[in-house]
Amino acid sequence: MDISVIGGTGEEGFGLTLRLARAGQDVIIGSRSEEKGAATAQKAVEILGGDARVDGTTNELAAERGDIIFVTVPYAGQADIYRAIKASVAPGKIVVDCTSPLATAVGGRAWHVVRPWHGSAAEAAKAILDPGVKMVAAFHTVSGEQLQDLDRPMDSDVFVCGTDKEAKAAVGELVDLIPNLRWVDAGDLTQARIAETMTALLISVNRAYKIHDAGFRVTGREAWGRPGV
Amino acid sequence: MDISVIGGTGEEGFGLTLRLARAGQDVIIGSRSEEKGAATAQKAVEILGGDARVDGTTNELAAERGDIIFVTVPYAGQADIYRAIKASVAPGKIVVDCTSPLATAVGGRAWHVVRPWHGSAAEAAKAILDPGVKMVAAFHTVSGEQLQDLDRPMDSDVFVCGTDKEAKAAVGELVDLIPNLRWVDAGDLTQARIAETMTALLISVNRAYKIHDAGFRVTGREAWGRPGV
Repeated sequence: MDISVIGGTGEEGFGLTLRLARAGQDVIIGSRSEEKGAATAQKAVEILGGDARVDGTTNELAAERGDIIFVTVPYAGQADIYRAIKASVAPGKIVVDCTSPLATAVGGRAWHVVRPWHGSAAEAAKAILDPGVKMVAAFHTVSGEQLQDLDRPMDSDVFVCGTDKEAKAAVGELVDLIPNLRWVDAGDLTQARIAETMTALLISVNRAYKIHDAGFRVTGREAWGRPGV
Repeated sequence: MDISVIGGTGEEGFGLTLRLARAGQDVIIGSRSEEKGAATAQKAVEILGGDARVDGTTNELAAERGDIIFVTVPYAGQADIYRAIKASVAPGKIVVDCTSPLATAVGGRAWHVVRPWHGSAAEAAKAILDPGVKMVAAFHTVSGEQLQDLDRPMDSDVFVCGTDKEAKAAVGELVDLIPNLRWVDAGDLTQARIAETMTALLISVNRAYKIHDAGFRVTGREAWGRPGV
């Protein structure tokens, strides 16, 4: 199975790439620029060692090759990126939107959000792609900085929103490959309207305490993962 | 110091009453009906034992007597309750709004929210009261059921939003009286726009896993409480 990370040159995308490649997955970094994609893949291999299977190319080619396609781009460019990859994402594929509609997209503050017309950034993305694409929203509240710091254990849960249960579980299996991350089924895709804004709350907490990577753990159950298991 | 709990006959309010009274605080339960307020206070004393100092009366009288006034009412009745107690809440007092604008208020689902005109239920409440009242929003994501189950330790963090730092710390001191609860400064009152909706996300998680009291812990720091301490 190939994993693509559209916007894989950014903090969150590069962190995800490192963690998933270290777990033995094939990862293709997508970038607006093929050169930058390739150079970032090279950097990942240097960090991880020669066995790591990370490739880099354009967003369009990365989207075409991936079975599960993570999209980790700032909200300001999100719709443009989705329109650019639209023709490359075949029906039946799983797309994991990681966007939070932070107000920085319009010159505002990172602890404020704007409200996407479709309710959430993930639903806006879904409206652009072929209706047969399985859209999942996840990873909004996981620090990109911490993902990149491979020597530091993660300490966070991943809220996974989506309407297709199998797609959520497939994404959840990738979450489970990253030590100390757990995935929590947060409901259908519309719940991304809440999960996406929780990034801004964490940034507000970071700001209050002058820290960088506040995160959430969910209590109430010993283990999470796929409901009913 | 007297603590009032407006809507103290409900799940969340009664749970808060029990936990704060058990910690040695004087608590006044407010209810629309004086008789119901008094009966609920009597019930609290029966649960806690004769030393507990819990009184019950009308919402208006409870608001007048409290130094810190918790408001734990469903969103559907929130504005009416605030208008009813408005004349009884003197400037300078601390009001802790615990309301989440769940869509149940308009016949919808508990894992959905409606958007208050002022941005959050807490800001709507602030707009009703005297401008000199110090408004804090907190306790949205703490299960009322778990608060009432005194034999079970809490396992949750309390997001505290407000513009007045001293008021937040005063509320935080009460949080710290309840074993295993911690308080996290989530920023100014507008952050309640996010914190309030997180109740609905927890309800969605509860629904997915068929459980009752999912909660949040915040990671990224050993201890929380007042920032800078």
